[in-house]
Order: sequence, then C-alpha cells, then structure tokens
Amino acid sequence: MVWNLTSTHTKPGDLVMLVGTGHKYFIFPLQAGGSYHTHRGLLKHDDLIGLPWGSKIYSNTDAPFFLLQPSISDLLTDLPRNTQIMYPKDIGFVLLTLGVSPGQQVLEAGTGSGAMTIALANNIGPDGKVISYEIKEEIQKMARKNITRLGLEDRVIFKLGDIQDGFSELNIDGVFLDVQNPWDYMKQVRDTLKPGGPFCSLVPTQNQVSKLLISLRRENFAFVEVCEILLRYFKPDPIHLRPTDRMVAHTGYLVFGRKVEEPESDNNQIDDPDLDTKKE
Amino acid sequence: MVWNLTSTHTKPGDLVMLVGTGHKYFIFPLQAGGSYHTHRGLLKHDDLIGLPWGSKIYSNTDAPFFLLQPSISDLLTDLPRNTQIMYPKDIGFVLLTLGVSPGQQVLEAGTGSGAMTIALANNIGPDGKVISYEIKEEIQKMARKNITRLGLEDRVIFKLGDIQDGFSELNIDGVFLDVQNPWDYMKQVRDTLKPGGPFCSLVPTQNQVSKLLISLRRENFAFVEVCEILLRYFKPDPIHLRPTDRMVAHTGYLVFGRKVEEPESDNNQIDDPDLDTKKE
Amino acid sequence: MVWNLTSTHTKPGDLVMLVGTGHKYFIFPLQAGGSYHTHRGLLKHDDLIGLPWGSKIYSNTDAPFFLLQPSISDLLTDLPRNTQIMYPKDIGFVLLTLGVSPGQQVLEAGTGSGAMTIALANNIGPDGKVISYEIKEEIQKMARKNITRLGLEDRVIFKLGDIQDGFSELNIDGVFLDVQNPWDYMKQVRDTLKPGGPFCSLVPTQNQVSKLLISLRRENFAFVEVCEILLRYFKPDPIHLRPTDRMVAHTGYLVFGRKVEEPESDNNQIDDPDLDTKKE
Amino acid sequence: MVWNLTSTHTKPGDLVMLVGTGHKYFIFPLQAGGSYHTHRGLLKHDDLIGLPWGSKIYSNTDAPFFLLQPSISDLLTDLPRNTQIMYPKDIGFVLLTLGVSPGQQVLEAGTGSGAMTIALANNIGPDGKVISYEIKEEIQKMARKNITRLGLEDRVIFKLGDIQDGFSELNIDGVFLDVQNPWDYMKQVRDTLKPGGPFCSLVPTQNQVSKLLISLRRENFAFVEVCEILLRYFKPDPIHLRPTDRMVAHTGYLVFGRKVEEPESDNNQIDDPDLDTKKE
Repeated sequence: MVWNLTSTHTKPGDLVMLVGTGHKYFIFPLQAGGSYHTHRGLLKHDDLIGLPWGSKIYSNTDAPFFLLQPSISDLLTDLPRNTQIMYPKDIGFVLLTLGVSPGQQVLEAGTGSGAMTIALANNIGPDGKVISYEIKEEIQKMARKNITRLGLEDRVIFKLGDIQDGFSELNIDGVFLDVQNPWDYMKQVRDTLKPGGPFCSLVPTQNQVSKLLISLRRENFAFVEVCEILLRYFKPDPIHLRPTDRMVAHTGYLVFGRKVEEPESDNNQIDDPDLDTKKE
Repeated sequence: MVWNLTSTHTKPGDLVMLVGTGHKYFIFPLQAGGSYHTHRGLLKHDDLIGLPWGSKIYSNTDAPFFLLQPSISDLLTDLPRNTQIMYPKDIGFVLLTLGVSPGQQVLEAGTGSGAMTIALANNIGPDGKVISYEIKEEIQKMARKNITRLGLEDRVIFKLGDIQDGFSELNIDGVFLDVQNPWDYMKQVRDTLKPGGPFCSLVPTQNQVSKLLISLRRENFAFVEVCEILLRYFKPDPIHLRPTDRMVAHTGYLVFGRKVEEPESDNNQIDDPDLDTKKE
Repeated sequence: MVWNLTSTHTKPGDLVMLVGTGHKYFIFPLQAGGSYHTHRGLLKHDDLIGLPWGSKIYSNTDAPFFLLQPSISDLLTDLPRNTQIMYPKDIGFVLLTLGVSPGQQVLEAGTGSGAMTIALANNIGPDGKVISYEIKEEIQKMARKNITRLGLEDRVIFKLGDIQDGFSELNIDGVFLDVQNPWDYMKQVRDTLKPGGPFCSLVPTQNQVSKLLISLRRENFAFVEVCEILLRYFKPDPIHLRPTDRMVAHTGYLVFGRKVEEPESDNNQIDDPDLDTKKE
Repeated sequence: MVWNLTSTHTKPGDLVMLVGTGHKYFIFPLQAGGSYHTHRGLLKHDDLIGLPWGSKIYSNTDAPFFLLQPSISDLLTDLPRNTQIMYPKDIGFVLLTLGVSPGQQVLEAGTGSGAMTIALANNIGPDGKVISYEIKEEIQKMARKNITRLGLEDRVIFKLGDIQDGFSELNIDGVFLDVQNPWDYMKQVRDTLKPGGPFCSLVPTQNQVSKLLISLRRENFAFVEVCEILLRYFKPDPIHLRPTDRMVAHTGYLVFGRKVEEPESDNNQIDDPDLDTKKE
C-alpha cells in the first residue's frame, strides 16, 4: 500500500499529489532521480523526497505547489477511465450501508475503471478480499493498472467473464453491481451471497429501477430500499456564504436489498406505512 | 467483534437484529437460555442459535420476523443516545473524504453517543486506533457501553477532558470534530494532525460555518470545502415509482480542510474560478 | 372579489384571516353581528370591522391574534378538500410557464378542490375565463363552494363530464390537467388548444411521466419538458440560520409541452445536446 | 400588449419567437417588409404574417423553425441585461406568495433588467400599476426598453432615485426588493406598504439573510419566512427517464414578511414548534 500510509514524510515509491493554484492537481509516484513536468515548470523528485506532507514547494519557474498524500477521494476522482464514474457521495453511502469492513469478502461486477474496486479494497483491508468480475478484457486491464498503482492488487481477485454464467464464489459478505441490466443477474447474486447478505446496485434511469425492483422481489430479496443522494458545495467565503452556482443534478439511483429465506409479503414492501418516516 | 463477522449462521454472543412487519426492528445479543419479548410475542434465543442469517422465524404468537446481522448503518441508527445524531449519509461521505482506512490512528471530539466512534473504529480495523475525547463523563460512559456492546472497545482510546487544553497525540492521520464551537480548537487540531492531514467538522448552522471558515484560514488550513448532503428515499414500488412524501431537510454542513505548511493566498479560497466545476 | 382587494381596512363581507400564536390560522368572512369562536376564546366581528389590516387584536380571553387579508397562498393551503393538494411551489411555476395572464381563456381538468382553479382565476382577472372540467358531481360541488366563497365564481365555467368525450372549447390559451391518466386525453387537449398553445400536467409517479411523454410525442407536442421543484424552508433565526429539520420530499413531476404544427424529430427531444445547459 | 394575446394567428407588430433545432431561439417583432437573419438562413417577415402560432417554417436555406408566441418565461429568460437574473422558479413563487393580482399597485426596487417588472406588470393587468425604483439611469433605460418592447410600459411607473430617501407612494399592495442591502430600507418599505401588506426580497448569501431578518424584526414585520427553491429538469425520454446531469444549485434565498401593527414575540419567530411541519 502506497497511499493511505500513516507516514508523516514522503519517501521513494510514495504516491504523491501536487496541487497548484486553481486547485489543479497531479498524482504520481516518487522515484529517486525522476522529474515531473507541469504546465508551470519542472520539479525534481529528489527535492520532494523526505519532505513533510503538506509542504509548499516551488517549480523551477517558481510556481507554488502543495505536496500532499492523495486521499482515497482524490484517487477515485483522478482515475484514468473509459467507463462512467462513481462519485464519492454515492461510494461513501454504499460502503456504509453494505457495511463493508476489514476482513470481509465482497464481490462486484463490472470492474469498470476500478473506482469501486479501490474503495472496497481500502475498506476490507489486508485481511479481506474483493472479487471483481468484468466482461471486457481491455477494461479489466486498465482497472488492474489503476489498482496496482495503489499497491492494492493483493486484495483483489480479478475475474474475466460473463456474469450470466454465475459467480463461482459462495457466502460472499456483500455484492455491488454496476452493470446496465442488473435485473438479469439477481438469481446469480442470490446464489453467491451469504444468507442475510446485502446487495446494492447503482442505475442511472428510473426505468432501470423499476425493472430491478421486480427482479429483487422475484428472487426473494427483502428490505429493499431506493434512494438518491444530492451533494451541494458552498463557496467557502465566511462573509458571502452561499452554495456554488451549479451542481451535479444526478448520478444514479441506489437500490439496496438483502437476501432472506423467504419473501416478505408484497404489501410490506409497497404499502409500508412507516416508509416515509423511516430512518435516514 | 460481534457484528461484522463473515459468518453465515448465528452463534451465541452474536449481535442479532429481528425485523418484524412494518420494519420495526430489535437488536440484541444471543445468549444460550435467554428469551426476547416483543410486542408481538416471545422468542427463545436457543431457537435462534445456529440458524442461517436471513431466516424467517416466528414468535410464540406466530408473528413473523427476519433474523439478520445488523449492518453498521442499522447499529448507528439504533444507538441509545442523549446527544444529536450523525446520519449515515454524512458519516459515509466523511469517512471517504477523510480517507479513514485500516491501520490508521484517527481522533474525534466529542465522543457523544459513539456513532462516529463506531464508524471510525470499523474502518480503521483491528490494527488502527480511534482516540475519542469527551468532556462529560456520563456521555462518555454511555458511548463506551455502546461500543463495548459491539466488541470494538479494543480499537478505541477514550479520553475525558476539555479539548481547550489540547490533544496529547501527535501525527494523527485525521481529525473529526463534532462540538458546538469547533472554531475555538483549530490550533489544537493543527497541533495533533500529521503534516498534510485532513480535518472535518459537522455544524448545523450557517453562522457556525462562517466562524469555522475564519478559524481554518487563521490556522493555515488549505483545501477548505463546505458542503451538504441530501438523501431522498423512494417508495420501492416498480409501477408507482416516486420519492417518499417527506424527507430530512437538514442535518448539518460538512466543513473539510487540510493542514499545510503555509496558507494558500486568500483569493485562492474565495474566488477560485474552478470551484463550481470541481469534482463531486 | 373579496380577498385580493387593494383595501387598507376591513369591511363587512371581507374574507379575513386570524393568526394566533404558533401560526394557527382561521379564515372566514366578516359579517355584522357575527362572532367567531377559537380554541383561545371568542371574537366579535363588529370589533374587527373597520380595522386596518395587520391589526393586533385580542379574544375575550385575552389571547392575541393578527387580523390579516389572506393571501392566495394562504387560501390555497387552507382549502377544504377531498382530493390531493397542489402546492404553491408548483402552482407558481405552472402559472408562469404557461404564461397565464389577464384576459386569457384557460382550461383545466379535473377541478378537484378548486385550488388550481382559484390560482388560474386570480391570474386571468375579471376579463378572462377558466373552464374547469370535473367528472364527479360532489367534488365539483365542493370546489364551486370554495370558489364562490372567494367571489371568483364569475370567472369560472364549471363543466361536469368525462373528458374522454373531448372539450367543447376551441382555441384555448392554455391547458392544465390534474388527472390520473393524462396520457389518455392528449388528443382532446390538442383539439381544444390554440395553435402553439401550452400544456401542463402534474403527475406523482415516474411511470406516469413516461406514459405521458409517449402520448405527447404521438400527438405532436413539442418543447416537452419534465421537471420537479423542491422547496426548503429555513428557521428564520439570524444567529442560528439553518434549514428546517424536515421538508416535503415530493409532490409531483411537472410535464410541459406545446401544440405545434408538426412534430420535432425524435432525436431533438431525446438527445438534445443542449438539454443539460438549458435555461432554468 | 403584444405577447400574451389570445390570438391564434400572427399579425404585424406581434412579438414572435423562432425556435430552431437544438432549441436555439430568437425573439423579435414582426414588421411588414422586414427580414430576419439567423445562422441558418434568412426568413421574410411577410411569409410569417398570418400564420397560425406553432407553424413549422423554413428559412431560405431550408432550415426548419417553429413559429411561436413567446411565453412570459421565454421573455424573462431572453431579456437583454446588465444585472443578475431572476429565475422563473423564484419569480413564480414570489408572485403567488405576495398574491400579486389584477388591479393591484405593487412596488419594486431596483428595476434591474426589468424581468421582475415584466412579471409583476403581467400579473397586475391593465388596471394595476407597478412602481419601479432604480438608482442608475442607464440600467433604468435598458429596462424601459425591455418593457416597452412588450407593450407593458403603460402599466409601469419608472422612478429614478435612491430609495434611502424613501418611497413617495402609500398603501402599496406588495413590495419586492432586489438590492444588495435590503436591510437598510425596511423602514422605508414599512412606510410605503399598506397595513398587513406583504414584502419579499431575494438575496444570494446567508449573511444577507441574517442581516435582513434582524431588520425585519426591528421594523415589526411578522410572519417572516425564509426559503430556497431548487428546480431539477429531467431528460424527457420515456424509456431512459432521469434527471439532467447538471442543474442550477443556487440562485438566492427568498425572505418574506408582513407589515403588522405590533411585533410578534421573539420566541414565536424563532422557536415556533410548528415551523418544521408548516404548510408548504
């Protein structure tokens, strides 16, 4: 692991983040003898090694930068990708609601850019495992590169294949699906989940939510919940405090469920009188 | 640890959750010979021991219940408390943005009900530590009880005292403040954080945000961000899909910052042209 | 008209609003010799006649009240009803987007409680007309009573019948449908609208939105827009400024369209690249 | 009035809106003999005169356009301006909450681009009046041009001057302030409002809200409410229904109050237990 260390100073091999004016940032690993070119001049790695995190440094053209440990949020947002992104606002809530914890074995499909893979791998720690299915080889390849760069590859088992054929794992502690048609795989998800195990999927459209809800019910999932998360930033000016002008209006709907022995009666799900006042 | 196990069947000592119709739920530990009384009849612990999670069971009056492992979300929501609650929507985003990870040493104040303590303790795993400060003894006592019940007490160092006097720890990997006047303690937070280390506080009012922003700037924190999170649930009915009638409108504003060597210039913070289009 | 007068003092016949502590309010017409009983004592109408609006008055048990002209918002919220409510947040936006203006002839179905009828009647003024269709006689009766109470009955033409049979009016300036299945009547709406005329409907579920969108396209409506409005109140405390704890999460989706000569091409509607950055 | 007519066909002098592909639109008055140049070719006014609204027409390069009556929303959004915009989502709610109705005399300051002036002038109809104060002559000039173009100039009394000196009108039916420091003028607003009359202001920052709340209380305004409105558009695709990717996150906070004889007690305002469950 190279990025969530508990270190106070940089050392060779560390993934570092340089942040210049305008919050432009660059993430790369420190290598003795290396150099990094930005649009505001050049920095020598050797000058950066051994500094305390948070140091202010200057390029050869005197442009200022902060030298920081990238946080997991920084890394997720920065990921090279050829697929749709998952946002920290959604990832944080999914991790907590699925209860992803050190030592667990969790499963996801598809791997995509590896953003969720990284978040899961961070949470399950060195004693857990993430099993990550992907159908396209070139996408898996890029994800593997993203994850290896963070030193997390030992925590992830990459699988290539069509999840229509099912998952070979049993008694998985939690499943996350980020695919176009999750409703086609709920039987497979049920088979791989441990009894009582939690499931989540993110889908962009409401039509997908409806299809998934039908499939979840058919496969005897209970405690089904659908929600969306809105994140609004403020301009951090203490005397002119106000939200930013624009925001992300939509990423996707989160659908949760749990594998149980037998279905709840239909009306429990639909007409639940407590639904509006449920815990949030 | 008794609740985020990777087990498939219940055993004595496990914390279990019974969920009846209308999603009413009860969390308690299984004890050989014990019995649990609900408003819908009695259940004998011995009948529940050894069952797969997710089993459907019946009380002596034939009322149906699901037998589940409580997730961390369930536990946080269920916590006995005498202070204001932190919501999963906020906790998940805070954990991810602070980058709280297995093996870290993180610090919080005040302990309160212990909800954030539990979330932090879950994420830092068996090799990390949460240092939790609280000024009121009776509140600390209840939080300790809540945390011990989950078997997480070995991961938490409880401290009793006024944080005005500072934190005795150095090079802490991340700090979360849930106190009325966080702006009074930013010097202390700076002293305990490792270089580059992240800080977060949740405050309910906009006046508090303004005061905290001023204090963060004075103490040379950079990358200051203010945001709020809205969570909206939907009625999970595939043919009448729509949000619930009412929702939580506000819990608090999240304020983030990072300790850096030197302050950014003032205008970077306020007039940052990229702010509206920043990553979300 | 008895309630949006430009008067400064009350007179017999005026609809008045009494507001007591805790913002409890009562709306009723002043009648010489009358008296009004509240849970906090009795008020004689004669004592209220001739006072300036905004006066502070006291019941016979010394409970304080403000004497106010009810605003149209107050009246809409206060309406006796046996059907679902329309909210001011939605009504205001619908009126503006449809361009409902003095002198126009507008049409709505169903009448329901008459809330939208009142809002439309207020906007079209003494020289306009609202044609309001309702299928159930008892509902029409209550709406008529609500509207007559405000002295707006001369501006409204009440029609009883099934709109499946079509509207008898031609060249209507704007149409608003508040019915369960608006998609079944878009041919009828098209026939009654003037060329270029605007249409709006409010539907609670996303499934209804989809059906309505298909019907609008089939009937050659263009400039189709779907939106929802969220209204969040704040606690009006200058030193503890923050949103209220809870809010209405959903009333309905607003769907707008305009009758045009010929349909836009399908991709204009769906894949419009400008859609995300459109005017708001 | 040239734009909210109840006509079915165009005639000389009418303000028309041409909408091309990608929803690009152009608003201009029809003049016999005139011609209009777009980036997609030329249209002769004479070919457009006498057509039904909603007609599909073609430029000399065969580019398709719809010929529409601009709605008030279209006009407000299209306004030439040198000041900050007011959005339809806010305007609609303000008009309804202030109860702006045909025949009323309402007052605003500053005039700005004239957007609110137009909306007010439309609602008060031919028998009402809008008194509009502006301190800068060049801004008033542009607003006057915007309003004259719509044929609404007879409904508006333009005043040039510093509202610090007060308003010369008495017993005004409603006041809207769109100025940077509304708190400095609440005495003046109180003096011009009729008893019980409603007030509204839109301010962008929370610090402004706090200052305005203090001023409203000092000047004995009651029924003070603060709110914000969020408008979210959806992509109107029936089989991929979902919100747009981005949205306006903030325009401003709306602050309402009513002039009453005597102030409510402080706790009524702040600690009102009913506040969270108030009508919306």
